[in-house]
Amino acid sequence: MQSYHMTPRQFREYGKELIDWIADYYENIEQYPVLSQVKPGEIFNSIPEAAPEKGEDFQSIMQDVDNLIMPGITHWQSPSFFAYFPANTSFPAILGDLLSSGLGVQGMIWATSPAATELETRVMDWLVQAMGLPGHFHSSSTGGGVIQDTASTAALTAVVAARERITNFASNARGIEDKLVAYVSTQTHSSLEKAIKIAGIGLENLRLIEVDGDLAMQPGKLREQIEIDRKAGFAPFFVCATIGTTSSNAIDPVRAIGEICKKENLWLHVDGAMSGSALICPEFRKVADGLELADSFIFNPHKWMFTNFDCDCFWVADKKHLIRSFSILPEYLKNKATESGAVIDYRDWHIQLGRRFRALKLWFVIRHYGTEGLRHHIRYHVELAQKFADWIRNSRQFELVVEPPFNLVCFRLKGTDEQNMELMNRINQSGKIYFTHTKLSGQIVLRMSIAQTHTTSEHVDNAWSILQEEAEKLMNV
Amino acid sequence: MQSYHMTPRQFREYGKELIDWIADYYENIEQYPVLSQVKPGEIFNSIPEAAPEKGEDFQSIMQDVDNLIMPGITHWQSPSFFAYFPANTSFPAILGDLLSSGLGVQGMIWATSPAATELETRVMDWLVQAMGLPGHFHSSSTGGGVIQDTASTAALTAVVAARERITNFASNARGIEDKLVAYVSTQTHSSLEKAIKIAGIGLENLRLIEVDGDLAMQPGKLREQIEIDRKAGFAPFFVCATIGTTSSNAIDPVRAIGEICKKENLWLHVDGAMSGSALICPEFRKVADGLELADSFIFNPHKWMFTNFDCDCFWVADKKHLIRSFSILPEYLKNKATESGAVIDYRDWHIQLGRRFRALKLWFVIRHYGTEGLRHHIRYHVELAQKFADWIRNSRQFELVVEPPFNLVCFRLKGTDEQNMELMNRINQSGKIYFTHTKLSGQIVLRMSIAQTHTTSEHVDNAWSILQEEAEKLMNV
Repeated sequence: MQSYHMTPRQFREYGKELIDWIADYYENIEQYPVLSQVKPGEIFNSIPEAAPEKGEDFQSIMQDVDNLIMPGITHWQSPSFFAYFPANTSFPAILGDLLSSGLGVQGMIWATSPAATELETRVMDWLVQAMGLPGHFHSSSTGGGVIQDTASTAALTAVVAARERITNFASNARGIEDKLVAYVSTQTHSSLEKAIKIAGIGLENLRLIEVDGDLAMQPGKLREQIEIDRKAGFAPFFVCATIGTTSSNAIDPVRAIGEICKKENLWLHVDGAMSGSALICPEFRKVADGLELADSFIFNPHKWMFTNFDCDCFWVADKKHLIRSFSILPEYLKNKATESGAVIDYRDWHIQLGRRFRALKLWFVIRHYGTEGLRHHIRYHVELAQKFADWIRNSRQFELVVEPPFNLVCFRLKGTDEQNMELMNRINQSGKIYFTHTKLSGQIVLRMSIAQTHTTSEHVDNAWSILQEEAEKLMNV
Repeated sequence: MQSYHMTPRQFREYGKELIDWIADYYENIEQYPVLSQVKPGEIFNSIPEAAPEKGEDFQSIMQDVDNLIMPGITHWQSPSFFAYFPANTSFPAILGDLLSSGLGVQGMIWATSPAATELETRVMDWLVQAMGLPGHFHSSSTGGGVIQDTASTAALTAVVAARERITNFASNARGIEDKLVAYVSTQTHSSLEKAIKIAGIGLENLRLIEVDGDLAMQPGKLREQIEIDRKAGFAPFFVCATIGTTSSNAIDPVRAIGEICKKENLWLHVDGAMSGSALICPEFRKVADGLELADSFIFNPHKWMFTNFDCDCFWVADKKHLIRSFSILPEYLKNKATESGAVIDYRDWHIQLGRRFRALKLWFVIRHYGTEGLRHHIRYHVELAQKFADWIRNSRQFELVVEPPFNLVCFRLKGTDEQNMELMNRINQSGKIYFTHTKLSGQIVLRMSIAQTHTTSEHVDNAWSILQEEAEKLMNV
C-alpha cells in the first residue's frame, strides 16, 4: 500500500535533530530579543495562503520554523523574561510531555489507560503531602485531585460545582439560581469574572469585595456584603480567595474568609495559581493558613514548578460534589471498570471528555528534581526577588509599591504614569528583558516576576542595570 | 550556584534515547495487548506513596515507565485499536508537539507570541479552503477559526456565545435566560448535555429531537418542538446538528436544520468531531450540505487527521459574537497591539486564558502529508470500513445495523444483547484487538471504528477473523 507516513527510521533521524535544535535553542536563547519584534500581520503574510497539495520534507519545515516562526516568538523560556506570571518549562518536563505525545493515549476513563488515571492520582497525592495541603484533598479521603489545563477552567469547574451544590444538583432550581451571588476581591484574577459569566450566574451577581492596604480581601467587608445580599433576597454561594494575586501577589486571609464561608455555607475556592508552588517550602506555608476550610484549591505547576504548559492542579475537599456536577454517562462509554465503582473516571472531574496523559510530565519533573530540588529553585527565585526589592527600596529613582511576599516585585519609577509606561515600553522594545505593568490603587505599577526556570542573579542584576540606565535617560531628557 | 536542572548535554542524550524509545514503541506496538490488562489499583499501588526527596536519574524514571506504566497503557496508537473514535497521532504531529513543548510559549494574546496567533489563523484558513468550508469561516471574512482542546469545550463555547447573543450580551437578562431551550437529537454526543448543564441552561431545557431510520435528526420534529416551546413561552436559542454521530456515524440534515435555525433565529452548531475530517475529500462533502447556515462548526484533527490530542478546530461565522461573549480585559493584559485592534487575541475566543502553541503540530501534519496525503489516508480508512461492512452484510453470524457512511461500522452478532457483550468482552480481554459497543434503538450494537493512523487491510482482516472465530465458539457452546 502507498503510504505518506513518516517512517520510524525518519522519525529517529528528525526527532534527534529536533532534540538538538531544542538544546541549541536553550543554549542560545539569550541572543533573541525576549519580546518578539514583529509587526501585526508579518508572520501571517509570510506563510502561503493555501495548504500544500504535496507533502514537504522535514528539512524545509524546520527551515520555515527558523526563518518564519522564530522572529514571531516571545521567549517565555528566556531567563530575562520577567513578564506576567511565567509559563515555565524544564528539560525533564519537555521529555515527559514528549513521552505523552508519543504514547498518544486518551485517558478519558480509567479503562482507556489505567496508568494515565492512576499515575495522576498518585502524583496529586504526592503533592498533597509534599506541599502540606489539607489531608482531605488526598485520594484516600473524601476529596482528591485532578490535573486541569488552566486555572481559568478550574475556576469554572469550581463555580459550577458550587452552583450545583447549592441548588441541590437540581438543574431546574430556577427560583434560587437567579439569585445566586458570588464574591471575589477587587484584585481577583479576571478568570473568575469569566467563569461567573460562562456559568450563567451573570456578572451583575459578582460582588467585588474591597481590599486592605496590602491589597488583600477584607473579611469584614465580605461579611457585610453577604448580609446585605441575604437581606435583599439573594443566595450567596461562592467565594474565591487568592494566595498571590496576579497584579501584586497579595495574600487573602484564607482562614478568616474560610470561617465566614463555613458559617454561611458558601463554596470556598482558593486560587494559588502562581504562589501555590511556594507551599513546597515549609517556611512559606503560613500564607495557606486556613486552607483546610477550602472546598477547592488550585495551583499551576506550569507557572512556577518547571512543568510545561498546560498543567493546573485542582483539588476538592469532597469529590462527590464534583462528580455529581460533571458526570454524564452515555452508553458508548459504559464499561465494567466504571460500573465496578473501583476506579476513577477523570472525565467526570472536569469540562472536557478527552484528556491527555499530563501526569507524565509532572511525574518526570518531581522525580528529576526531587522535592529538595524543587524547594531549592523556588527559594532561589524568592531570594532573587527580595534582593531586587531591596535595590528598589534603596533607590533614588524607583519606589516599592507593596511588600513582595515571594517573587513578584511591584514598583514604580518616581514619576508620572506616562513615564512609567514609557520606560517599560522602551525597555521591552529593546528586547533585552521583558516585564509588564498593572494598575494598583489607580496608579500604573511595574511588575518584575522573577520565576523563570533559568533566571539567575546575573539576569536580575542585568535587569536592574537596564532599568536604572533607562530611567536615567528618560528622566534627564 | 547549585542547580538541580538537567543540562542541555543531558537533554540531548536523554532526548535522543526517548526518540528511539518512541520509534521502538511504534515498531513493536503490535506485541502489546491493545486493552490494558491491569486490575484497578495495580498501577497506583506500584508507585511509591510519597514523592522522592532526592532527585533521580533519567534511566530509573524510564525503567519505571517500562515496568510500571506500560502495563497500564491501553494502546490508542495500535493499528488494532477500533474502539470509540480514535485519538490519532503521527510522527510529524509528535515532532510538532515536541517543538511546542520546547519553545514553551504561552500565546494567550498576540503580543505573547505573534507567531503562535498568526500561524494558527493561517492554518485554520488553510483548512477552510482545503475542506471546502463556507467562506465566512475564513479570517478574511466575518468569521474565523481557533484551535480548542476538545469538542466538549468547543460545544460549551458555542452554547455560551449563543446564550449571550440571544440575551443581547446583557448577562442580567434573567427574564429570557430562564426560558432558554436548546435542541439536539437523541443521538447527539453527551458533551452537548454537559455544555447545557455547565452554561446554566438546565438539562430540563434541553430537547432531544427524534431521529429517523438512519438515526438522523428529523427536521420536521425539530420544527414542531420549537413551535410547542414558543407557544409555552420558552425562548429557543440553540441547535446542534451532527455530521457523524458517535454511536452510529449518522448524518443530520444540516441544510434542513439550518433553514429552520435561520428562520427561527437559533444558533446552529455543527459537530463534525470525527467525520469532519472526511471533508478534505471532495467526494465526501455532500454530508456538509448546508454548512453555510451554521454559526459554528468543529472537527477534531486529533481524531482522524493524524494530529495528536488535543486539537479541536472551531470556526464561527461571526467572530463578533464570540469575542463579545468571552472578552474580559484586565489592566495586566493591556498592551499596544491589543489596543490597536490590528491583531487577534485568541484568549477572547475560548474559556481558557493561557494557551499552548497547538498550531505547530497541525502545521507539521499538513505540510508533511500535504492535502494529497491526508486525502489518501482518509480514503483508505473509508475503503477498509466499507470492505468490512461488506463482510458483515454477507455474513451468516453477523448483521449490519446501519449503512456506514464513512469509517464506522455498526453491526451485531445475530444473537442476544448478552451474547454480543460477551463476544466483545472476550475479544477485548484477549488483547488482540479492541472495539466498543453502543445501544441503538434499545439494542446492543458493536462498533468498529477504522481510523487508526497505521491500520491497514491486514489489521482489518485479522479483526474479522477473530470476530468470526470467537462468534463461532460462543454460539456453538
